[in-house]
Amino acid sequence: MDAIKSCFTTYGFAPIETPSFENSDTLMGKYGEEGDRLIFKILNSGDFLRKVDDALYTAKDSGKMTPKISEKALRYDLTVPFARYVVQHQNEITFPFKRYQIQPVWRADRPQKGRFREFFQCDADVVGSKSLWQEVELVQLYDAVFTKLNLNGVTIKMNNRKILSGIAEVIGAEDKLIDFTVALDKLDKIGEEGVKKEMREKEISEEAITKVQPLFEMTGTAKEQLDAIAALLASSQTGMQGVEELNFIVENVAALGLETAQLAIDVTLARGLNYYTGAIFEVSAPEGVSMGSIGGGGRYDDLTGIFGMKDVSGVGISFGLDRIYLVLEELNLFPETASANTKVLFINFGEKESLYALKAIKRLRAAGINAELYPDKAKMGKQMGYADKRDIKFSVLAGDNEIAAETFTLKNMKSGEQDVVDFKTLLIKLQ
Amino acid sequence: MDAIKSCFTTYGFAPIETPSFENSDTLMGKYGEEGDRLIFKILNSGDFLRKVDDALYTAKDSGKMTPKISEKALRYDLTVPFARYVVQHQNEITFPFKRYQIQPVWRADRPQKGRFREFFQCDADVVGSKSLWQEVELVQLYDAVFTKLNLNGVTIKMNNRKILSGIAEVIGAEDKLIDFTVALDKLDKIGEEGVKKEMREKEISEEAITKVQPLFEMTGTAKEQLDAIAALLASSQTGMQGVEELNFIVENVAALGLETAQLAIDVTLARGLNYYTGAIFEVSAPEGVSMGSIGGGGRYDDLTGIFGMKDVSGVGISFGLDRIYLVLEELNLFPETASANTKVLFINFGEKESLYALKAIKRLRAAGINAELYPDKAKMGKQMGYADKRDIKFSVLAGDNEIAAETFTLKNMKSGEQDVVDFKTLLIKLQ
Repeated sequence: MDAIKSCFTTYGFAPIETPSFENSDTLMGKYGEEGDRLIFKILNSGDFLRKVDDALYTAKDSGKMTPKISEKALRYDLTVPFARYVVQHQNEITFPFKRYQIQPVWRADRPQKGRFREFFQCDADVVGSKSLWQEVELVQLYDAVFTKLNLNGVTIKMNNRKILSGIAEVIGAEDKLIDFTVALDKLDKIGEEGVKKEMREKEISEEAITKVQPLFEMTGTAKEQLDAIAALLASSQTGMQGVEELNFIVENVAALGLETAQLAIDVTLARGLNYYTGAIFEVSAPEGVSMGSIGGGGRYDDLTGIFGMKDVSGVGISFGLDRIYLVLEELNLFPETASANTKVLFINFGEKESLYALKAIKRLRAAGINAELYPDKAKMGKQMGYADKRDIKFSVLAGDNEIAAETFTLKNMKSGEQDVVDFKTLLIKLQ
Repeated sequence: MDAIKSCFTTYGFAPIETPSFENSDTLMGKYGEEGDRLIFKILNSGDFLRKVDDALYTAKDSGKMTPKISEKALRYDLTVPFARYVVQHQNEITFPFKRYQIQPVWRADRPQKGRFREFFQCDADVVGSKSLWQEVELVQLYDAVFTKLNLNGVTIKMNNRKILSGIAEVIGAEDKLIDFTVALDKLDKIGEEGVKKEMREKEISEEAITKVQPLFEMTGTAKEQLDAIAALLASSQTGMQGVEELNFIVENVAALGLETAQLAIDVTLARGLNYYTGAIFEVSAPEGVSMGSIGGGGRYDDLTGIFGMKDVSGVGISFGLDRIYLVLEELNLFPETASANTKVLFINFGEKESLYALKAIKRLRAAGINAELYPDKAKMGKQMGYADKRDIKFSVLAGDNEIAAETFTLKNMKSGEQDVVDFKTLLIKLQ
């Protein structure tokens, strides 16, 4: 999180946090029926049943009772609270507004492996500008974060909603845009034949399916793929606009250069189609790591419309923290220094020795070294066992001899090596 | 929070986080009747009314209905979840267990100035050792944190529950220990006469009140005060043990030295008497700042008893984050560098100029400088206005001339001064 935050900051994004609670009204109806069911509701305080009228009470209907006994709910994602925040603070906010938010969200799902009732989301958005430079910068930002995390070789896939609309238009399936893109989006999972089968089931014509054949055969560089798509979409104004937008992004990202990520075009990418209106992003882990997407986002032209504030265009990306964590762990990329573990344990030999130890510990801590005194004069084995279990790398033994000579016996817990050193050497060795 | 966390780490405390939800059983009954009322309850998911039997339902009693329709609740503090955590993980935890926790808690209070329904608590505890070195280290830790925050001159006040018991014993008011200490604890607020009045109301004898007179007249160093208390408590074994414990702490803290805080004895300090069994801490803001305590804590001998795990002694301190924030703000102690604000805005003159700008911005960000390009080619006044409102210190103008000469016009937004510089100079000036 610290790595991600520091990148956000250099890109000019400021942190915001919103309360865990939202009014139920704000959340309900925003995530579909399934979403409504998964929102955690807070029971009203006090004598909450008093306000329920008798007729409703007698019906004993949980669904109808809920809004009467619960006015607040826990946030389900960061997007809706952010939209609420923008509308509520529109007169104080300086647009374009660049914010990031890293907070827990709650969902009343059945907990299972990789699915929690409470988990963190991490979003960065810019609202109030239609400039495509934002998309360029968000690609750079993904690259900066994954480079900082030493996660080299991620692929940032991009598409554009207008290209999908253009394809549907060109093949004469505009009325089936959603069916069509939902099927196309599954190419990764069910393959070309699977996608075609699903299209047929959704009554997309054979002629249309033949026309989209080039989409299954995209190869070459991003530029080459965009040229191929342009040829397919020449007759669609919307489609060509999408191509142009992607071209702008691809060219400028290339001119600026990426550190470790690569940018790719993926015309099958649909993600949240009903929401995104322009660019669509998705990040996949480096090859060889089997993990779904570790990030995604896109441009939306109506974030705040649900709250009555029209024409606020925005573009944002999110980071899949849980999955990024798993990938870093799998690739053994967590630096040892990331651990906030204690580096050295001073063995407790009694009162006088403890004071001697704490005087040294105070100086070590001032130099930023994580150091501890074992609190009790316990048996040596117990104290060493504590250092072992806590995975503390060094111990220091200082008894009468050391105190008299103003030295310390420093023991490497792994190799067992011991050295008698003065404080200066102790400090250097621990640094 | 970062300052506090880094001190915790050098002292060997490891972070833990517990879920926002606890089973209602775990929380209810732990904070008194008022606390039970202030705990936020989560409505069960699905058809929650189905499980309520008809007899209970017909009664329409909110209090009796609550446990039937709500199994989970939001944490009310960090202590009870920590105790639950220790009991649940007792076989995996290496004792003594040093943990810190900084997380929000929720209380169904009426919101008002300085009182929120959601706020952060910040605790550091060591459990599993009775060593008084912990108390010594916690005093040092308070000193380290407030020194790091540049909040010089805080007073760490200490007392000991055994001293309070000893006083009650000596004056023959053992049965009135709580009334007696509650009254004494108010000395700051209601003065000596107020305390005596309250003691009389609680039927504490005139003889007893005369005996405690020395408590109102404590002066001198911590050592001198402890000597005076020892004289008063000579006949109480418990009291003398308390004096001895405080003596140990005071002497060793003096031997180790504090950076900016001072340690004081305050025998009127009671805080959560029913909970603490040994040392009691309270931190007050520097003189001249009118603010209640900004931290407190103490030793408790039975943290986990409520969950059936006996004899786990612990000692902990907490930091009053909201109040510390207010004090730092009042004293203007937030360093400017703490702000994660953007340092330089590049003015957008069009496509070619933007690419030139973003190439420089990329290098500035790599050097850790927070930099932004205004996303749209808007009127100069609008772009400058954005920099102003966002309190961005510098702007960069780079048009045809600058691009041709590979330079940048750097403008100080406050003074209005402008300089034409090359990239190297730009970087140095912004650093």
